[in-house]
Amino acid sequence: MDAVTLGDIFLLETLGTMVLIILGGGVVANQVLAKTKGNSTGWVLITFGWGFAVFSGVYVAFASGAHLNPAVTIGLAMTRDEFLPGVAVNAASIGTYFAAELLGAFLGAVIVYLTYKQHFDKTDDAGLKLAVFATGPEIRNPLWNTVTEVVGTFVLVLWVLVSGHTESGLGPLGVALVVVAIGMSLGGPTGYAINPARDLGPRIAHALLPIKGKGSSDWGYSWVPIVGPILGGILAAVVASGFDIVA
Amino acid sequence: MDAVTLGDIFLLETLGTMVLIILGGGVVANQVLAKTKGNSTGWVLITFGWGFAVFSGVYVAFASGAHLNPAVTIGLAMTRDEFLPGVAVNAASIGTYFAAELLGAFLGAVIVYLTYKQHFDKTDDAGLKLAVFATGPEIRNPLWNTVTEVVGTFVLVLWVLVSGHTESGLGPLGVALVVVAIGMSLGGPTGYAINPARDLGPRIAHALLPIKGKGSSDWGYSWVPIVGPILGGILAAVVASGFDIVA
Amino acid sequence: MDAVTLGDIFLLETLGTMVLIILGGGVVANQVLAKTKGNSTGWVLITFGWGFAVFSGVYVAFASGAHLNPAVTIGLAMTRDEFLPGVAVNAASIGTYFAAELLGAFLGAVIVYLTYKQHFDKTDDAGLKLAVFATGPEIRNPLWNTVTEVVGTFVLVLWVLVSGHTESGLGPLGVALVVVAIGMSLGGPTGYAINPARDLGPRIAHALLPIKGKGSSDWGYSWVPIVGPILGGILAAVVASGFDIVA
Amino acid sequence: MDAVTLGDIFLLETLGTMVLIILGGGVVANQVLAKTKGNSTGWVLITFGWGFAVFSGVYVAFASGAHLNPAVTIGLAMTRDEFLPGVAVNAASIGTYFAAELLGAFLGAVIVYLTYKQHFDKTDDAGLKLAVFATGPEIRNPLWNTVTEVVGTFVLVLWVLVSGHTESGLGPLGVALVVVAIGMSLGGPTGYAINPARDLGPRIAHALLPIKGKGSSDWGYSWVPIVGPILGGILAAVVASGFDIVA
Repeated sequence: MDAVTLGDIFLLETLGTMVLIILGGGVVANQVLAKTKGNSTGWVLITFGWGFAVFSGVYVAFASGAHLNPAVTIGLAMTRDEFLPGVAVNAASIGTYFAAELLGAFLGAVIVYLTYKQHFDKTDDAGLKLAVFATGPEIRNPLWNTVTEVVGTFVLVLWVLVSGHTESGLGPLGVALVVVAIGMSLGGPTGYAINPARDLGPRIAHALLPIKGKGSSDWGYSWVPIVGPILGGILAAVVASGFDIVA
Repeated sequence: MDAVTLGDIFLLETLGTMVLIILGGGVVANQVLAKTKGNSTGWVLITFGWGFAVFSGVYVAFASGAHLNPAVTIGLAMTRDEFLPGVAVNAASIGTYFAAELLGAFLGAVIVYLTYKQHFDKTDDAGLKLAVFATGPEIRNPLWNTVTEVVGTFVLVLWVLVSGHTESGLGPLGVALVVVAIGMSLGGPTGYAINPARDLGPRIAHALLPIKGKGSSDWGYSWVPIVGPILGGILAAVVASGFDIVA
Repeated sequence: MDAVTLGDIFLLETLGTMVLIILGGGVVANQVLAKTKGNSTGWVLITFGWGFAVFSGVYVAFASGAHLNPAVTIGLAMTRDEFLPGVAVNAASIGTYFAAELLGAFLGAVIVYLTYKQHFDKTDDAGLKLAVFATGPEIRNPLWNTVTEVVGTFVLVLWVLVSGHTESGLGPLGVALVVVAIGMSLGGPTGYAINPARDLGPRIAHALLPIKGKGSSDWGYSWVPIVGPILGGILAAVVASGFDIVA
Repeated sequence: MDAVTLGDIFLLETLGTMVLIILGGGVVANQVLAKTKGNSTGWVLITFGWGFAVFSGVYVAFASGAHLNPAVTIGLAMTRDEFLPGVAVNAASIGTYFAAELLGAFLGAVIVYLTYKQHFDKTDDAGLKLAVFATGPEIRNPLWNTVTEVVGTFVLVLWVLVSGHTESGLGPLGVALVVVAIGMSLGGPTGYAINPARDLGPRIAHALLPIKGKGSSDWGYSWVPIVGPILGGILAAVVASGFDIVA
């Protein structure tokens, strides 16, 4: 395709975020659900799985900029005039990215459910089933959990904003490795949502899907992985602008 | 070589798929057979091992397009006029790829057997011996096992079809990392054949080789890792075409 | 930015080293502190986490050369006339790099503390809390611990000095993988500081922060991860110059 | 340097192979010796450690072709007229590579000993001490152990010979990932020497160094990791030539 329209952006970001969550939710399913081949493998599996999920999703949505994440959309919106050549930053384009990211994440979670259908059925712990969809903290505390999500998203969006001038042929592998790094290093307290759509879309899917023996969708926590990443994205845009290192 | 003939394609895809299965079957052997240095290392070993097996095999067959997988051949056949410059998509070329992929997978499995000969002899569990050759589900159910293979192969072939326009110097590393991702995320229920030749060729080898104390080759399951990946490849071609993102 | 000034270098090296330590200290926190999702994952987590921390930090400080490490600054100073076009090697520029590296490491450690605040509170072992900030040897012996740090830093700085002529599009991934290698291979005895700022900055943060139940900052060992890396950097510069392989 | 002489080759291959073995032997030391931080981490550590050791060493010896391995030298000698522009394949150049590879491997092993000096002293099992230097099979059988080494080296040298035409900006990362793959997949029976110098040089170091409580250097097995890799390299050259895929 030549000129990228808002319609293209909607389709591509939906498909890309769907692939992101198929693989990202999938690796959690493999880790926590009963009778999987990867059961209880550990945090290295989770973090590489999510990183390479980003890698795969970014390729699919490459033509639309591959935000896949409202925090990234916000960071770019604060530091650019256009998202793409001919696509100005405005309420319509921002809204298009947001809607597609949320829809794609929802659809990806539904596909993870179908892929692991029998394993959801064989898993007793309702908390583990929810973990396939949404993040949850190890020590629940709105303030500190939010701080953790702010820091993780700050690192992610800062990297996205400054990476453009770096001599490297890595393409989408770069952001994938940063996501691996954030997971390994900053994911310990809250499970690193670092993306409001990644958490909210699948949480809605959890609420709607007829999952056998499911429990609460934990809406009381759901605002933390929205507010934290948004603040982190804003902070990264402010710092990158202030240091004059936006690519 | 300059002009690639069907004969070249046959030789290169055979050799490339052979390398793929030497390393892919080999990592399972290292994980499950008795008295190996990597025994019971876990799912991270399996998934990186298979991913880097793809990496190695793609280099060997680079000049012929490095399909190494009938589902990839199908996805490309549905979205292109030519596999390579001067090599039209038709029954002869498709058949050449299929035959080479199957033969290469068979030969690779024979070499894995020779490489781990003594460890096959020292392993008691016939199921573990079969696992070196062919995939098997954790919860046997033809419908859901097929769904899982469809989803995994969809992600793989979608990536192959759309990746061509992405700015990246990764070359064969890209598809390797996607295979790692699929293994980590979607391999939990069935062991991610995502390639009919990868499963059928080695399963035939298992049936023919004089493996000490071997059991059934489990032909009752053998159609799932053929049908699922074929459907997944077709689905990816349909989606990529519909979204107009074929490279 | 066009011309890079000492002020730019100070800001960028501070920010880059801060990101390095946010992620590097973070992965240790995830590994050792109580109730984290990555608790006790193991040495693979630590080494990839630190490697990708370097990857992330180098991007942020790419425009200033991304030393992030006084041993790298020393190695470059010994083998070049300019750090960057127009930035001569002299006491002012060396001092700028050193100061920024130390400040960035200090700030990064403070942010790790905030990110894992609740987990510090729930951890009883004061030694584990210190480990998030500073390195410590498994078998304490100033001579041999220093030898180990010399060897690790020698490998790092040698690679930095010779890598410039190698055909590769990896960019910052190259040094990241070398740091993974050093951690996996040479980190066993002392925890591979291989960077005086990485150890001293966070150790100062440990001394100053109001960490609940903290113990000694172990100043008696603190000179080893300063002296060893400095000697290793000097040795690498001497060898690379002698072999005429400085890029 | 402009024109590469045999003297340059000797120095660079010595230094590159030394770095290879510092990191390769180091990761085994971290895995098996007493009181290390990476003790008993597992096969994922070993295989990534050796792969990134190759990555690091190849950079150091890039200007001399970075063989670092007599089996690679043999494979290239059988398929090329010149190793480098102006450096013909003949007894003198082959001998230069061989001598440097062996010397570098010896020196690297000595440095590993110094790096882990205290941990050698604290380790009781003489077999574990030898494992830091030389490979050994899990099930001792000269024929099958040799077959395993032939297959592993065949995959390595085949990749080296054919990789030149593949579009990729990976540089030395390519061969590093193939070495990771071989270790994960084919290293289970014998520990994948796949390089005569890698095994013989350190074995000589083991015999000469005053290691506390060391046992036999196991010379009875020492020919297998020499003969197997040489045969594997020859086989790869024959196959690559026959398939007309030498780059």
